[in-house]
Amino acid sequence: MEPRAVLAPAAELKGRIARLQAGLGALRLDAALLQQNADLFYYAGTVQQSYLYVPAEGEATLFVRKVAERARLESALGAVIGLPSPKGLPAAIAERYGALPARVGLELDVLPVTRFRRLQELFPEAAFEDVGQTVVRQRSVKSAWEVDRIRAASAVADEVSRLLPDLLEEGLTEVEFAGRVEAEARRLGHEGYIRMRGFNQEMFYGQLLTGPSGCVASYLDTPLAGTGLSPSVAQGASFRRIGRGEPVVFDFVPVRDGYMADFTRMYSLGPLGAELLRAHDAALRVQEAATAAARPGAACRAVWDAAREAAADAGLAAHFMGHGAGQVPYVGHGIGIELDELPVLTGSGLELEPGMVFALEPKFVLPGSGAVGVENTWVVSEDGVERLTLAPDVVTVVE
Amino acid sequence: MEPRAVLAPAAELKGRIARLQAGLGALRLDAALLQQNADLFYYAGTVQQSYLYVPAEGEATLFVRKVAERARLESALGAVIGLPSPKGLPAAIAERYGALPARVGLELDVLPVTRFRRLQELFPEAAFEDVGQTVVRQRSVKSAWEVDRIRAASAVADEVSRLLPDLLEEGLTEVEFAGRVEAEARRLGHEGYIRMRGFNQEMFYGQLLTGPSGCVASYLDTPLAGTGLSPSVAQGASFRRIGRGEPVVFDFVPVRDGYMADFTRMYSLGPLGAELLRAHDAALRVQEAATAAARPGAACRAVWDAAREAAADAGLAAHFMGHGAGQVPYVGHGIGIELDELPVLTGSGLELEPGMVFALEPKFVLPGSGAVGVENTWVVSEDGVERLTLAPDVVTVVE
Repeated sequence: MEPRAVLAPAAELKGRIARLQAGLGALRLDAALLQQNADLFYYAGTVQQSYLYVPAEGEATLFVRKVAERARLESALGAVIGLPSPKGLPAAIAERYGALPARVGLELDVLPVTRFRRLQELFPEAAFEDVGQTVVRQRSVKSAWEVDRIRAASAVADEVSRLLPDLLEEGLTEVEFAGRVEAEARRLGHEGYIRMRGFNQEMFYGQLLTGPSGCVASYLDTPLAGTGLSPSVAQGASFRRIGRGEPVVFDFVPVRDGYMADFTRMYSLGPLGAELLRAHDAALRVQEAATAAARPGAACRAVWDAAREAAADAGLAAHFMGHGAGQVPYVGHGIGIELDELPVLTGSGLELEPGMVFALEPKFVLPGSGAVGVENTWVVSEDGVERLTLAPDVVTVVE
Repeated sequence: MEPRAVLAPAAELKGRIARLQAGLGALRLDAALLQQNADLFYYAGTVQQSYLYVPAEGEATLFVRKVAERARLESALGAVIGLPSPKGLPAAIAERYGALPARVGLELDVLPVTRFRRLQELFPEAAFEDVGQTVVRQRSVKSAWEVDRIRAASAVADEVSRLLPDLLEEGLTEVEFAGRVEAEARRLGHEGYIRMRGFNQEMFYGQLLTGPSGCVASYLDTPLAGTGLSPSVAQGASFRRIGRGEPVVFDFVPVRDGYMADFTRMYSLGPLGAELLRAHDAALRVQEAATAAARPGAACRAVWDAAREAAADAGLAAHFMGHGAGQVPYVGHGIGIELDELPVLTGSGLELEPGMVFALEPKFVLPGSGAVGVENTWVVSEDGVERLTLAPDVVTVVE
């Protein structure tokens, strides 16, 4: 049996668009015009060169510049229309909807200025407002169908982590080891490209870090980063050779059918020292405290406070989520179609809701020795949280 | 001996900044404030969370929010200064330069609108202009040092292509085969992440396509794309199993030390049919005609016209650079730190200059059978072009 791509059902897209329309109404917008790949995938179920026009009421239309036949095959939307040139967009909207919108929502959080200005020229009468945050906020709450997609991505992480001990050998470079692991991920259907929304944020599979590499911070807003192979992509696996008794951090983002999870497990060639094992135990206690605090109605800050308190109780506050200038002020982040979604588990008042999915990643950086931690992906349930990444939270010692 | 990252020498950075300053003068700008990763890498030699302030005259300063120590280690710039918060940027500039700039260049082609608006609030008196195209135009001409970097990336493509026949087996899925190939690339130091400048443009290693997968177009501005694994990332390797007698397109982007090349070779399990081999011969003739037309002072359109003419002479105009709605109007593109650089080998008047580096990728799509083609990376020399990817331009038959 060949694995097949999972297409978003019509009912999913319909529900998503209806919720966006409610948001447009609240902002007194006549329409949204969406263009970014992740948002197109969410609302239209296809990523072709296109504009998704969502009126505050009525049917949405996907205007496709390239490739319309393919968009029609992939999207369950009823209205998928070819658009020979972007310049024809106003006329195409006017023809289909009878008039041009006066107040239009755009993804101003990701849209480059020059592209925005071309839209201003195309729609000289329109007032444009930001709907990026509306979209991001809506996408933070997943449907049951979406949670199943993230479950499937999580299964890739569980399976790759099970294979990891057979791939780990003394003397491999980090990047050589990473390549072996990534090949298994690909075999299991990993899509490769990992979407992030933040400007300049970049990710390639995650980070595979050994020993002192785990202590190197970078341009990313992550607790661990590593040196990478050069100053160009200054994160992730390096040319460092893996030695015995070193913590091997496997921080891995699996992606299947457009949805991702986030996952970290620890390995070592031969046993780890007592200090590192104590820190790993502390990470498990942080995970326990934070997930106990996570339930519908709890503010993100309650989870963050519980996590920090558990880290402080372990005497590791100064090492929690990085060390020194590399410390980051959060213990987890929303995840779904992009790696940097809401909710961010930081000192914010945003309240958790059923269906929110987040990665919780308590990690400790011990300068000189390396980093340890654990990361799982969780969905907020009716009365707490359910775990989606299921591999055991253990340090696996390879002899 | 451990491979080491290559850092951009001080003289390289100094020359690049001096050329940018000449561009600022021509635009009557007081300064440029650069923020995008690729541009930071080019002008500062490091990619940390930072702002590179380049006055029209005098020394540039890299203001680093995260992580300043690391930026100092990586960058050969003399002035690398910690910046606790972006809000402190105007004060930091005023302190260092005595005054705030009145006219400031920003990368408006990539800067999101909300980020731009925050800068407008921080610098309420400043007028902002676009310098994205100035930067892109400057970066299209590589120094000898940069050409050496692209040579090193090209060597990764040559070596991986040499290993490919041992990795190809009947019955593998495209993505399983891709994973094997990617693991070799990683072992050789491939950095993974591939930077593209265009909004919504995404790339993961390139495309590994077999048989009819080569005929599927996508949201990318490329002649070939493939189905990918799902509508989310609708390009590249799929779950299709590789059969005998099918064209296997290995379109691959190697990256070393922040610089990339672009490369395509053909493989097959058992011999290919005569029609496909004829099209491959035609691709070689297009390559020959296009490179004969490429020299300093030649317009891009001359190269594009020579390529189209050779394709038409082979009777394959309708199949050149895609088929039907999937055809793209170019035969090559600039390449360096980003995959989508200048010059684009299309009907443009931009003239080639010594030091420009481009990938030339004549490809034919034969619906039902698949795609064939060849792609090499070339640098414009004083009197023609020099080839940087050196593996033989042959169809490799694996028995």
